[in-house]
Amino acid sequence: MFSGAQISLYPMTGDFVSVILGALEAIDPYRKRFRIETDDLSTLVVGPPEELFPLMRDLFVAAAKSGVHVVLSATVSRGCPGEPDAEICTPTTDLGRVSQGADAIETSLAAVDAAARTGQTVAAQFSYYPLGDGRHMDEIYAAIDFLKESGVFDRAKNFCTKLRGDAGPVFATLGEAFLNFAPEGAHVALDLTVSANSPTRVR
Amino acid sequence: MFSGAQISLYPMTGDFVSVILGALEAIDPYRKRFRIETDDLSTLVVGPPEELFPLMRDLFVAAAKSGVHVVLSATVSRGCPGEPDAEICTPTTDLGRVSQGADAIETSLAAVDAAARTGQTVAAQFSYYPLGDGRHMDEIYAAIDFLKESGVFDRAKNFCTKLRGDAGPVFATLGEAFLNFAPEGAHVALDLTVSANSPTRVR
Repeated sequence: MFSGAQISLYPMTGDFVSVILGALEAIDPYRKRFRIETDDLSTLVVGPPEELFPLMRDLFVAAAKSGVHVVLSATVSRGCPGEPDAEICTPTTDLGRVSQGADAIETSLAAVDAAARTGQTVAAQFSYYPLGDGRHMDEIYAAIDFLKESGVFDRAKNFCTKLRGDAGPVFATLGEAFLNFAPEGAHVALDLTVSANSPTRVR
Repeated sequence: MFSGAQISLYPMTGDFVSVILGALEAIDPYRKRFRIETDDLSTLVVGPPEELFPLMRDLFVAAAKSGVHVVLSATVSRGCPGEPDAEICTPTTDLGRVSQGADAIETSLAAVDAAARTGQTVAAQFSYYPLGDGRHMDEIYAAIDFLKESGVFDRAKNFCTKLRGDAGPVFATLGEAFLNFAPEGAHVALDLTVSANSPTRVR
């Protein structure tokens, strides 16, 4: 099992470096359980799949507190057969309850309900890619059924689904979609955009 | 057939709105052949698959000419079975020469060699997702063989491949990878990040 993400933060300000560096402190509590590497395009985090979305939530909320328009963009992956198994990625929860159908939705909804609010409103959109078998659309449709009941569903868009709400339930919804709708060994990728403080839509 | 992209531009300046609006003029020549819609997260372009990367190249190079650090992020898709067929998306070239193996690589390399230079150096990384069959890694590995010979290959990263060079051959390489390594009717998605004027690496 290998799981992780390539994460980028884009603060729309000339002072973007200090916003990014300030926000990075928010991931200090995760450093012991993750391998983290940065280059000029993104920061790689490799670690347990169930902690990826909490890590991104804490990073993004810290950046959004700067008040500037800021976007997080990430490519999230688990089970890629081209990556080596890594002990650091051992999940501490059961992954992939898709075979249980409605149960995956129920479990996921309970996790979203339990998510702590952060006080930060965000808009997000993401594409979900269950790879490597013939029934990828079934898994996508099951995940969409969950998303529509999540309480943070905004609308379906071409190629992606849009969410809106408090960062707590939004990132919880993303995490559950990533963890629960493809089998444990499956290759799953998720392409994510999260935005805060946009002047285009203020609420 | 349905093909298009959700595209976002992130200029790292407080004046980001004017950089984005200025760059949008660069896609005027494409408007007749594309359906284009914008919301607070991204701009949807729907049209012929072989014109998606030229459109993004022209948009990004125009934004990069502002001189500020700017990033383009996009989710690109063709053949999604959840989207309706659309006449506007009819390809004018042959798609998907993966069955011809080495020929797909040769055709793609010739297209990259013929790409006009723009004078704008960019760094890019992307993930390529051929969906819905059991041999997706074969298609990924064939595409990687092409990328390594493209002249703009930088390095393999976890979950993605990094390119660097002039925007002309970089976007041509991305376009060929998207068009040529999965069959015509296949569902293919590509998750893209392109950066210019980053202070992290100047060359």
